[in-house]
Amino acid sequence: MKQSQLFTKTQKDAPKDEPSINAQLLIRAGYIDKLMAGVYTILPLGLRVMKKIENIIREEMNIIGGQEIFMPTLQPKENWMKTGRWKTMDDLYKVKDGSDREMALGPTHEEIVVPLAQKYINSYRDFPFYAYQFQNKFRMELRSKSGILRGREFIMKDLYSFHLTEEDLDAYYEKATKAYENIFHRTGIGEKTYRTFASGGSFSKYSHEYQAVTPAGEDLIHICNKCELAVNEEIKNETEVCPNCKGNDFRKEKAIEVGNIFKLNNKFTVPFGFKIKNERGEEREVLMGCYGIGLGRLMGTIVEIFHDEKGIIWPESVAPFKIHLISLGKNKEAEEIYNLLRKNNIEVLFDDREATAGQKFADADLLGIPYRAVVSEKSLQAGGVEIKKRNEKESEIIKIEKLVERLKKEV
Amino acid sequence: MKQSQLFTKTQKDAPKDEPSINAQLLIRAGYIDKLMAGVYTILPLGLRVMKKIENIIREEMNIIGGQEIFMPTLQPKENWMKTGRWKTMDDLYKVKDGSDREMALGPTHEEIVVPLAQKYINSYRDFPFYAYQFQNKFRMELRSKSGILRGREFIMKDLYSFHLTEEDLDAYYEKATKAYENIFHRTGIGEKTYRTFASGGSFSKYSHEYQAVTPAGEDLIHICNKCELAVNEEIKNETEVCPNCKGNDFRKEKAIEVGNIFKLNNKFTVPFGFKIKNERGEEREVLMGCYGIGLGRLMGTIVEIFHDEKGIIWPESVAPFKIHLISLGKNKEAEEIYNLLRKNNIEVLFDDREATAGQKFADADLLGIPYRAVVSEKSLQAGGVEIKKRNEKESEIIKIEKLVERLKKEV
Repeated sequence: MKQSQLFTKTQKDAPKDEPSINAQLLIRAGYIDKLMAGVYTILPLGLRVMKKIENIIREEMNIIGGQEIFMPTLQPKENWMKTGRWKTMDDLYKVKDGSDREMALGPTHEEIVVPLAQKYINSYRDFPFYAYQFQNKFRMELRSKSGILRGREFIMKDLYSFHLTEEDLDAYYEKATKAYENIFHRTGIGEKTYRTFASGGSFSKYSHEYQAVTPAGEDLIHICNKCELAVNEEIKNETEVCPNCKGNDFRKEKAIEVGNIFKLNNKFTVPFGFKIKNERGEEREVLMGCYGIGLGRLMGTIVEIFHDEKGIIWPESVAPFKIHLISLGKNKEAEEIYNLLRKNNIEVLFDDREATAGQKFADADLLGIPYRAVVSEKSLQAGGVEIKKRNEKESEIIKIEKLVERLKKEV
Repeated sequence: MKQSQLFTKTQKDAPKDEPSINAQLLIRAGYIDKLMAGVYTILPLGLRVMKKIENIIREEMNIIGGQEIFMPTLQPKENWMKTGRWKTMDDLYKVKDGSDREMALGPTHEEIVVPLAQKYINSYRDFPFYAYQFQNKFRMELRSKSGILRGREFIMKDLYSFHLTEEDLDAYYEKATKAYENIFHRTGIGEKTYRTFASGGSFSKYSHEYQAVTPAGEDLIHICNKCELAVNEEIKNETEVCPNCKGNDFRKEKAIEVGNIFKLNNKFTVPFGFKIKNERGEEREVLMGCYGIGLGRLMGTIVEIFHDEKGIIWPESVAPFKIHLISLGKNKEAEEIYNLLRKNNIEVLFDDREATAGQKFADADLLGIPYRAVVSEKSLQAGGVEIKKRNEKESEIIKIEKLVERLKKEV
């Protein structure tokens, strides 16, 4: 893509009402725009990042048998009355239809997916099965000060699994754990992210939060110094010792919850009377697990973890482009390199704007694309293109004909 | 995908409160599920169709320079007050945030995209530019009886173009026309779809609706028998003769509006004071065009046009799978063919269920996948696989080793 054609631009100053680093950098760089507190437009560069995150998650969900669907935002009050959450969920947006019937704006989809599954499933042979979606969710958040970490409107991947036995739920829960680990590793935050023991409510012993350690975190987690197991604040208050190794030496870290997995058991199937006869003819309540990841929150967390004073430093797997090609002064070589890279399916943002070298370099650092390639009279005289990684200081000159090979090698 | 693993199933009967053919067939086949009037869940098979439609539209939008973004559903009342539509738009859903501030659920995004563009654009050099999105829209529809043709919640592609001169808007409008023709041809309904003259409101002489002729249509269009130009009911009432050839012999057809393109001119930029100095230093109001397609409506229209008494007949470009592989009785060859097709990247739904031949054939006809390949003892004895197109009567036996080649040829 040519940067001169991009309708968004970088901005020098961050909005005053955005204290969070993620929102400051993402807004200044032109990845997102703030419409109002907790509500953001995803701009062209930001949508490229979101789609990469989405595709990584989709691949991992498909591997564990997830079937992708798309459930509605508008949800009937009746369903929410059945589970009791119409009254107990404080952050539920309510809206009236033409006939003054009330509906909820979906903050989550248990109330929809359970009766949906119930329509199609009538035999123990149909179990287990797994449905997931990427969907805009709505929560009436009062404290929307963490940029895209906590929105009133946000895109989530939510997976729901259905089982007839506890063993089957347990086994799938472990599979989902593996998928979640893959997702966080592939998006670059794996080393910082802890599967953290959390309360399971009254229905299962534990649930798990995936907590990414960063000073921007709103949560506190406690990590066992002996075995590296992490527990959240609530669990720590309940127990003195590590649930795994019985050690009692913990370190405290601030962290962002980037995902959670939860055994719902029969919590949402009971209200809808979703029961099935097993192979021995005995009626069984259907058991469920749910598995969530907020995509905007994940994008914001990546920015919190990977940035410096100059801007964002995207992991290659989620970067909007692989390479930022910068032309200094008019030269036809830059345009030729741009076409060469595109022909080789290398994702490239081409800074073909009329701007100073200083402006272009500052923008490149702010945008945070993994490779920067500068084409100037100087670089051409030295034999080619000056290439530098965003997270490294040193640059080097490489020949134009070697550029594609080099970029294809370094994945 | 193996059909035995699909959590949805076909249904014999259509819901009684769904008179439309599109909803009846899509629900019976398990493409969509009705949550309430005008609100549908898109099921795994339906989402595959929607994604194909989405990708065709995305490709055509990118060709004409569209930059994809994602704007919010929650929209501030102030923006809608500025354009006056907070009071004039009857079907606007309104919702309150925690502090009782009112917001709109976006039925369209002019109120968001104009101030968004205004933030980034400050020179005539930035023009023209084009932003589009795929987004869930909300309209308080009272007559939701046309299945997914008219929803209260529905996915739309909306493109907005920004220009400094009328000539530039006119030229882009023609480009968009070409893109729209490509979209309707590629999704299979090109021959039935007319670019139909419609009222331009008070701001431009004409707009255009893309009307697909089918008995299920809610609209009436008038087609000139001499030059094939189409006008909508409103225009026909205003004029006796064809605006193109001045002929006066029209035929009337029922049609579904699958898209529309509209020169908004300065209608939405004036309320936001979006003006730019041109290259001669003269202040100019920014001009806009908008270009919409409803994805669910397009899917429903395709079904209305391509079906028979047994079920849907998908055009190959939007079919959920290319081939429906049916195994009759246990045979290892079917499984081998399934793996062979997948290895060759041919999208295949494999009916590996324990069911009668009659049930499997009925389901295949209902689902409407372009090719049906039956593997049975009989077909194997005759030399291979019995292959039949959904829209043809005759089947033929082809050798297993010829199947991939044949399917790759027939695109």
